[in-house]
Amino acid sequence: MNVAIVVAGGRGTRFGGDRPKQFLELNGAPVIVQTLKQFERASEIQKVVVVLPAAETAGFQSLIEKFDLKKVSPVIAGGETRAQSVRNGLMAINEADVVAVHDGVRPLVTPQEIDQVLHKACEHGAAVLVAQVGDTIKEIEGEQVKGTVPRKNLRRALTPQCFRFELLRRAYEGLTEIESAGIEVTDDSFLVERLGAKIMAVEGSGRNIKITTEEDLLAAEFLLKSVVSSP
Amino acid sequence: MNVAIVVAGGRGTRFGGDRPKQFLELNGAPVIVQTLKQFERASEIQKVVVVLPAAETAGFQSLIEKFDLKKVSPVIAGGETRAQSVRNGLMAINEADVVAVHDGVRPLVTPQEIDQVLHKACEHGAAVLVAQVGDTIKEIEGEQVKGTVPRKNLRRALTPQCFRFELLRRAYEGLTEIESAGIEVTDDSFLVERLGAKIMAVEGSGRNIKITTEEDLLAAEFLLKSVVSSP
Repeated sequence: MNVAIVVAGGRGTRFGGDRPKQFLELNGAPVIVQTLKQFERASEIQKVVVVLPAAETAGFQSLIEKFDLKKVSPVIAGGETRAQSVRNGLMAINEADVVAVHDGVRPLVTPQEIDQVLHKACEHGAAVLVAQVGDTIKEIEGEQVKGTVPRKNLRRALTPQCFRFELLRRAYEGLTEIESAGIEVTDDSFLVERLGAKIMAVEGSGRNIKITTEEDLLAAEFLLKSVVSSP
Repeated sequence: MNVAIVVAGGRGTRFGGDRPKQFLELNGAPVIVQTLKQFERASEIQKVVVVLPAAETAGFQSLIEKFDLKKVSPVIAGGETRAQSVRNGLMAINEADVVAVHDGVRPLVTPQEIDQVLHKACEHGAAVLVAQVGDTIKEIEGEQVKGTVPRKNLRRALTPQCFRFELLRRAYEGLTEIESAGIEVTDDSFLVERLGAKIMAVEGSGRNIKITTEEDLLAAEFLLKSVVSSP
C-alpha cells in the first residue's frame, strides 16, 4: 500500500483574505481540493493523509464529502514548520510501502507525474520530481557576483517526493536536532540526502507551480483551464 | 552619458498569436513599450537603443511617436541569439559612460532599480540586478540527486545589467569564439565574468519577471495594476 501525505499546514492568509491560501477558490474548488483530486486519480496511491492548520481539521470533513474524496483519511493538525507538519502526517501512518509527500498548494501536478515518481521510488527507494532551472543562477559572495553556476546540472525540487516508508521515518528522526541547529528544512529529500541514500530525479513539468501569491493563483487558473480543455 | 540597450530581438510568437511576444498588449500598450516607459522614467539613463527583429524595426517608429518615447534612438535589427542582438546594439553606440542591458520582456522593472544598478556600475565598473532563489535547488548527476545547493549564496540574475562601456565592449569581443564553442550565453554578466572583472550584485524584486508564457502575461497584468494603483 502506498500512502500520500498532502501537507497544507500553513496559516498564511496573504492576499488580504481571511482564509489560509490553500483554501482559496481555484476553478470551482479550494486549492487543496484541486490538489487532492489529482491524488484521487493517481492509480498508485491508495490512501491520503491530509495535514491542515489545527483550526481547519474539523471543518474539512464537509469538503471531503462535498467533493467525494474517497482516499482521504485521516486529517491531521500541522506543526510549526512544514517539516513538523510532514512528521505529524508520518506519525499517523502505521504501515506503507512507499510514502509520497506533496505540497497542498501544488494543484497542477498530474496523476501521471505522481505515479511516475512513486514507481521510481518503489524501484530505487527514493525519488523526487524536479524541473529545469529557467533563470541564470549566480553564485554571490557578500555583495559581489563570483560567477555563473552551470544550470545543466541544477534542478528545482518540486513535489511529490516519494520514499520507502522506513527510509523517510528514519530521515525524520533527525528533525528536532536539525531544526534546533537553525538549519531550514525546505524539502523532504534534504533529510533523506543526509542519510546518504540513493535518490532518483524524475523530470517533471514546470507547470507544477506552488501557489503562494495572487499572481500564482491567476496563473494556476489559466493553466488548469488549459489542461481541462485540451483533448 | 549613460545608454540602455533594450533587447527584444526574439521572433518567438508563442500563445498562438502572429506577433512576437514583446508586442503583446499589456495594460494598454505593447510589452516592449511598457518596458521602455520605465527607462523614460529612470533619471540616470539619457538614451535607449532598442533591438528588435529585423521585420519590426521600420514599423516601430509609429509606436515611438504614439507613446511619446523621447529617449529611444536608434532602433536596430537583432541577431540570431540574444547575445548577438546585444552586440548589434553595442555597435550602434559611439560613446557612453555606462551601458545598461535590459530584456525587452521585463516591463516590471522599476525606474528606481534601473538607477540603482546604474549607479553601482558607475562606482565599481559592473553591476547586476539579482533576486532570491525561491525554490529548493538540487544538484543532479545523471538521473540521481547528489544534494541540495545552499541557496543563501545563490541568486537569480535579472536585468538590467550595467557595465562601463569599454568593459562591455571588450567582453563582447570574445562572443563569436564562445558561441562557436557551443557555450550558451544566457546573460551579459557571463561574458564580463570571463574577463575577471569585479561585478556587484544589487538585490532587486522578484516581481521583475520575464514574460515568456501566457501565464506570465496574466501575472504581469496583475502586478502592473497593483503598482499603478498603489499610492
